[in-house]
Amino acid sequence: MSSEMNNPTNDAALRSFVPVSPESHFPIQNLPYGVFRCAHNERSRIGVAIGEFVLDVTALEDRGFFDQTVLGGRRVFDGSSLNAFLASGHTAWSEVRAVISRLLRDDEPRLRDDAGLRDSVLIPMGRVEMRMPVAIGDYTDFYSSREHATNVGTMFRGKDNALMPNYLWVPVGYHGRASSVVLSGTDLHRPVGQSSPDGNAAPPFGPSQAVDFELEMGFFVGPGSELGRPISIEEAREHIFGMVLVNDWSARDIQKWEYVPLGPFLGKNFGTSISPWVVSMEALEPFRCEGPVQEPGPLPYLSIQGNQAIDIGIEVSLRGEGSDGAEVICRSNFRHLYWSMAQQLAHHTVNGCDVRPGDLMASGTISGPTPDSYGSMLELSWGGQKPVTLPGGGERRFLEDGDRVTITGWCQGDGYRVGFGEVTGRILPARR
Amino acid sequence: MSSEMNNPTNDAALRSFVPVSPESHFPIQNLPYGVFRCAHNERSRIGVAIGEFVLDVTALEDRGFFDQTVLGGRRVFDGSSLNAFLASGHTAWSEVRAVISRLLRDDEPRLRDDAGLRDSVLIPMGRVEMRMPVAIGDYTDFYSSREHATNVGTMFRGKDNALMPNYLWVPVGYHGRASSVVLSGTDLHRPVGQSSPDGNAAPPFGPSQAVDFELEMGFFVGPGSELGRPISIEEAREHIFGMVLVNDWSARDIQKWEYVPLGPFLGKNFGTSISPWVVSMEALEPFRCEGPVQEPGPLPYLSIQGNQAIDIGIEVSLRGEGSDGAEVICRSNFRHLYWSMAQQLAHHTVNGCDVRPGDLMASGTISGPTPDSYGSMLELSWGGQKPVTLPGGGERRFLEDGDRVTITGWCQGDGYRVGFGEVTGRILPARR
Repeated sequence: MSSEMNNPTNDAALRSFVPVSPESHFPIQNLPYGVFRCAHNERSRIGVAIGEFVLDVTALEDRGFFDQTVLGGRRVFDGSSLNAFLASGHTAWSEVRAVISRLLRDDEPRLRDDAGLRDSVLIPMGRVEMRMPVAIGDYTDFYSSREHATNVGTMFRGKDNALMPNYLWVPVGYHGRASSVVLSGTDLHRPVGQSSPDGNAAPPFGPSQAVDFELEMGFFVGPGSELGRPISIEEAREHIFGMVLVNDWSARDIQKWEYVPLGPFLGKNFGTSISPWVVSMEALEPFRCEGPVQEPGPLPYLSIQGNQAIDIGIEVSLRGEGSDGAEVICRSNFRHLYWSMAQQLAHHTVNGCDVRPGDLMASGTISGPTPDSYGSMLELSWGGQKPVTLPGGGERRFLEDGDRVTITGWCQGDGYRVGFGEVTGRILPARR
Repeated sequence: MSSEMNNPTNDAALRSFVPVSPESHFPIQNLPYGVFRCAHNERSRIGVAIGEFVLDVTALEDRGFFDQTVLGGRRVFDGSSLNAFLASGHTAWSEVRAVISRLLRDDEPRLRDDAGLRDSVLIPMGRVEMRMPVAIGDYTDFYSSREHATNVGTMFRGKDNALMPNYLWVPVGYHGRASSVVLSGTDLHRPVGQSSPDGNAAPPFGPSQAVDFELEMGFFVGPGSELGRPISIEEAREHIFGMVLVNDWSARDIQKWEYVPLGPFLGKNFGTSISPWVVSMEALEPFRCEGPVQEPGPLPYLSIQGNQAIDIGIEVSLRGEGSDGAEVICRSNFRHLYWSMAQQLAHHTVNGCDVRPGDLMASGTISGPTPDSYGSMLELSWGGQKPVTLPGGGERRFLEDGDRVTITGWCQGDGYRVGFGEVTGRILPARR
């Protein structure tokens, strides 16, 4: 895997002939993949974001641009998802990235000086509609922020019993629902369900009164594994293609009543939103950094040297219905997570569980150490006890109908950003 | 939906020209669907079991046998899974069943007297290899046996706190792993993982010492639902195509250490086995019966009149490596389940969660009221405290390497059985 620090596609000095502002999430150092279409009935295609444009990678493949890579003439961009490309492995990822990076450089005339080719493969973002990038087979949600687990544990069980005894040994995770993972921009109806009754009375039934967001990120599995064959922690990186922003919408009152003893279910599976652009691990490589100290040291199957965290600043903003603008209510960072992605994947498969290209593994809520970095309303309002005052007026314990939650995040380079765009969605009133 | 008691395809007097013994699981009253192939590299086809033969339904479709049904000329059997047929809805299911039933009757000459047609569409079972019948999008596992929940709760928390407060209100369920659902006959390696430590020591890591089976059944979703649109309990039956036997293999020591607070994960997802033949709800209709009394009465969204249980006798047998034969260690019945399939599906979607054709929803362990009807080693050996004495000698607390577990089940009609065949699998030694 091209983890060399001098990967030429990551060079901070690289510039594209496509204009890219310093605040853009999509400079030539990023090159995230997505699925798009131009008109509603048109076939989906695969693209790479560059500035305010989408580069049509399916069209490039049609024209043979990747024939000199390890793919040869094999088609991996000829579908409505990234799955075939994900399955093709890290050598293909790296070589395709090198071809695209070269093609977009300001000192490379091939595309820059061919107006006809430019017109057919560079499409203004305003003219495309993004689609789900990946066909997700299984969705797993981890619980890898020690701060989040501590906050929730403190609220539910008191400060002395906040962390469960397994937390510092096990990268705790659970299976989520793949069918209800939706693309950014999808609005969700407030879920209906049962919540905790008073004493022996029947449980109340109706629209959730505690709808929440969860600030998360997730990675997509590249090549899969065979049932019964664990992926070692050393091999894990070769199975991780790239990352997206995730909002794991939650209904805390439904969750609280239902989750014993088998875990969250209807409190979660009414919708999980992801951002449309998948940022490759190769683009994130320069932003690797040290994660939290792990003490006690992890068991050998979870031990690995080197920087396992990534410095990705993340913000959550909330915009109430009729409000003038969105207000930032949380600033956190992916590097806070206690368990790394490699540890998550090694743990997930150590029992022989198989994974498939396109599986989504989310981090769990990414809360930081300070109250303004908590990644959910549950924590920001401390279980509803301390309403969050919105800077522009108003307050929130949980989300109200019409509230729009938007998560954005990026790695800050020297004069450029390797960003994730955003994942956004609105809570609509409960259906009657 | 053809729930009329006088559905002609369910008539006990029907006979096929294909010889079927009274003990066969596959008389003309059953007609379960599966996916098979004859040679290893051949394309998979869809078949219906009849006695010791497989009727090639894909070949029948090729020849236009279903052109007069609501399907018209639309191909639904032209793939490697039942998903397109599942999605086609109950009118198509019923009309296709009627065509196949008529074709196989002893008083219908069309196939009976056409040796050439018989040779090309009736294949001896010994010559086919069964494949996964359905491409499973999401797998949900419920916890619908009150007896099982009580037994496990008694072991873990004592008799007075055995059932969680939500149990009699909520059809508790959780998301399982779709990738590791495997076909009957697949052997599984003993999983490796962490288990509970003594005090503050590091958790032991190694092969599970408490591998278990779980006697379950599951249903496949037919037509899906849209995100945000619940399936009402009255509509639920139109979304349930048919059922299979399920063995939800479990590693109790891994599960016990990991499951707080988000539920079972690696203790379950190393493998879940299903039987190859999917028995349609239409074939099971004559065996509907009353389920347990639900007291307190369920909330309105879970309330429905009529017989919701099904009288399906189920047996689990165990065969140790080198043993002379399999020994029955559990006899239970699907009718014991507290929560019905319609209640499970209505609950699953009440919050707006969508379902897709081919989703698998399993019952949870089907334990009956008596100790010989407990559906797991955990219960049969009462947490390992009372080893199970095998009738032919030897004893078990949990499963040993080389143990083969086989689950079978059928509805007993008057002189015939509507059966499920079996789901079987062996525990292999842990991989090194």
